[in-house]
Amino acid sequence: MGKQAIGVVGLAVMGRNLALNIESRGHAVSVYNRSRAKTDELIAEYPDRKLVPAFTLEEFVDSLEKPRRILLMVKAGEPTDATIASLKPLLDKGDILIDGGNTHFTDTIRRNQELAKAGLHFIGTGVSGGEEGALKGPSIMPGGQRDAYDLVAPILTEIAAKAPDGEPCVAYMGPDGAGHFVKMVHNGIEYGDMQLIAESYAVLKQVVGLSNEELGKVYTEWNQGELDSYLIEITSKIFGKKDDETGKDLVDVILDRAAQKGTGKWTSQNALDLGAPLPLITEAVFARVLSSLKTQRVAASKLLEGPLAKPLEGAKEAFIESVRRALYFSKVISYAQGFAQLRAASEEYKWDLDYGTIAKIFRAGCIIRARFLQKITDAYSTDKVLANLLLDPYFRDIAKNYQAALREVVVAAINAGVPVPAFASAIAYFDAYRSERLPANLVQAQRDFFGAHTFERIDKPGSFHAQWS
Amino acid sequence: MGKQAIGVVGLAVMGRNLALNIESRGHAVSVYNRSRAKTDELIAEYPDRKLVPAFTLEEFVDSLEKPRRILLMVKAGEPTDATIASLKPLLDKGDILIDGGNTHFTDTIRRNQELAKAGLHFIGTGVSGGEEGALKGPSIMPGGQRDAYDLVAPILTEIAAKAPDGEPCVAYMGPDGAGHFVKMVHNGIEYGDMQLIAESYAVLKQVVGLSNEELGKVYTEWNQGELDSYLIEITSKIFGKKDDETGKDLVDVILDRAAQKGTGKWTSQNALDLGAPLPLITEAVFARVLSSLKTQRVAASKLLEGPLAKPLEGAKEAFIESVRRALYFSKVISYAQGFAQLRAASEEYKWDLDYGTIAKIFRAGCIIRARFLQKITDAYSTDKVLANLLLDPYFRDIAKNYQAALREVVVAAINAGVPVPAFASAIAYFDAYRSERLPANLVQAQRDFFGAHTFERIDKPGSFHAQWS
Repeated sequence: MGKQAIGVVGLAVMGRNLALNIESRGHAVSVYNRSRAKTDELIAEYPDRKLVPAFTLEEFVDSLEKPRRILLMVKAGEPTDATIASLKPLLDKGDILIDGGNTHFTDTIRRNQELAKAGLHFIGTGVSGGEEGALKGPSIMPGGQRDAYDLVAPILTEIAAKAPDGEPCVAYMGPDGAGHFVKMVHNGIEYGDMQLIAESYAVLKQVVGLSNEELGKVYTEWNQGELDSYLIEITSKIFGKKDDETGKDLVDVILDRAAQKGTGKWTSQNALDLGAPLPLITEAVFARVLSSLKTQRVAASKLLEGPLAKPLEGAKEAFIESVRRALYFSKVISYAQGFAQLRAASEEYKWDLDYGTIAKIFRAGCIIRARFLQKITDAYSTDKVLANLLLDPYFRDIAKNYQAALREVVVAAINAGVPVPAFASAIAYFDAYRSERLPANLVQAQRDFFGAHTFERIDKPGSFHAQWS
Repeated sequence: MGKQAIGVVGLAVMGRNLALNIESRGHAVSVYNRSRAKTDELIAEYPDRKLVPAFTLEEFVDSLEKPRRILLMVKAGEPTDATIASLKPLLDKGDILIDGGNTHFTDTIRRNQELAKAGLHFIGTGVSGGEEGALKGPSIMPGGQRDAYDLVAPILTEIAAKAPDGEPCVAYMGPDGAGHFVKMVHNGIEYGDMQLIAESYAVLKQVVGLSNEELGKVYTEWNQGELDSYLIEITSKIFGKKDDETGKDLVDVILDRAAQKGTGKWTSQNALDLGAPLPLITEAVFARVLSSLKTQRVAASKLLEGPLAKPLEGAKEAFIESVRRALYFSKVISYAQGFAQLRAASEEYKWDLDYGTIAKIFRAGCIIRARFLQKITDAYSTDKVLANLLLDPYFRDIAKNYQAALREVVVAAINAGVPVPAFASAIAYFDAYRSERLPANLVQAQRDFFGAHTFERIDKPGSFHAQWS
């Protein structure tokens, strides 16, 4: 019996769908799951596919061509460590483990280094696109040894999503944890996008007074223009969906408690560690947390009054266009923050990330896929080390033309008592970033006053301390 | 020769000042420093004080009454672990180590548990007030074994700051890491306070056009009322300080790059872990980080234009009063978030924190000391488990009466292009917290659409998944 070019360990939905994806490109795939039932199920469901089941790790490892290519699709954390520990004694030098799970990049750095000592390659790869993406073509963000990547690149390229111009959405991100890091920031950006869309919804509903039907039309229209993206597309569809049970619009039946799986939190915590300002995405994470305090909010809504509702001043259509511009410009600001975090990480962890390529592989397969990502790729092709996207001519133009709309929408929301933490954070970041002078001189004066922490001067280098009292 | 009731290890400025503070209450104090020079210096400088130098740890330990009380004032992290490791074999069961350093609370939990196995007590204590506080009376936040605390309480009570009503600013916070945790949140709150004051300064300067002299007067006046606090007091003094070299106002000579030592970051990262919304303090941390990107900001200021400056509409005096109210209400919101984080931590780590007592010991000695802390103590004396300070009648009144001013100031700043991330975050939090319905239903719909993450319904319990397409 011939050996397989690749095997998959872990046959939960993401693992089985990736195995089926690989198989669909003409490769026989060895498959293994710790509990036999999942393997049996998969084989029973797809008897005609070239899936080769193994029921022990020994059998599985033995079924693979050398150097072995093993895609781990097990739970992140302890289960991944346990699986690696079981596999390690069975492997030979040069074999390649690929972790496609939702792993924190610091774990990936650690595992990459540990396995390298045993002559094993370890690739940590982000996989975005959910169940359907895994099956039909995800966006893939691999990091690890470059030469090991080259050995798995052909298969990853085959199974990856294809951008509108036909390019596969996979590329080598960088050493050790680079791939999982990029995936983490992708998810943080996703939190930001979703919160911004939610705020646009709140403003359109509460300030403009649009019905669900009208909302569906607005997002459908927006999806034809520069906001064209997967998340706007599904948003437009959500407003048309009826609840099977009550016949009401489903969106109104859904409880307003947003859940999360932690990658947004990781992104914010890492930005704090790096000293990379990421206020918008962090507001988005906290907005989800705050939404989950539903009981407190209901109680507070009865005790804390806001402003009286006022009818919208000015034309509805013009204001809706302002919301569209506010959303697009805020999205630009959010990506500017996310990509600045990638840049800070690349310097800190010595990854030499290619920001234009990262935007490129986000163009299809993943949740944040959007037309405007091409603009980011373009920006970095002009300047590979651009400090901030807002400095690129295209985005400067957006800033110039759309900032008035963002200010208008935030002001209207605040006056109406509608919370727009991410929109408000966007304009604050923009105004701070373009401030030659910020009031941080006062903060430094205070710190020197109470703690002798010293300050710098505007007129000469050095650290200074004043006798304040 | 008699033995001392307490000894201090580590004679950098905080350690020596605490030793001098203890001695000034009539106690002889054993003192030890790893390098002999600091010990010699201290003794030479204060020959008449009852400071008993030791030059080996053996000598130091031997000079103390049992159970020994040892205050560690060494650098947080590795140096603290190293000192504990050196001391441990010299100690007897029941001895008490008190870590007064700037330690992350998770280290304190770990050390407390490790030392408990050897029968040793470990108290992690926050000490706030800087050098001067250490010498004359800091605010002290001890956590650890309750019975060990009782053995050090008399001395800690003597050296602590005294509140206006004479009460000492020290109290038992709770088990293991509770004391260092409270200190961490204290520092996070300090970041928020400082950023809010900085934003009020930016608005008064850039929107109202006040001079430094006028600013000094405004803050002096504010310090007479409900904003009465140490930070407002020093702010008022800062505007009157001249630069010795140039004769200019010193505040204008100080570079606008705010530095930080990491405790604000810790507070935000922990809030993300706990799922406790802390957006205002986090915006303050990011504002410092953004201020430090001075080179980028200067470049951006030439490329990114903002709104044209418009003269302030309406009366100056009335607007200044609005800024005062905006500052006070935002401060209330920031403390509401910080105390909600304490509450979440108390539940998560099983500490049974007493929030009213915490506010009480903040009333003197520490950087955030302020008249309004009494209002927080009062709120918790009415309801010991109040979910959020904004629900207390006094703070509800502030919200009712001051929210219009906060909205007005944020709107004016946004229209003027002046960044007010913390003010803007405050009103967004307030409006979100009092929202019975948030747009998080859309976020849940999106998550279920692209990832089958399920949603809850408003009309019945359970998890549901829809066929979206």
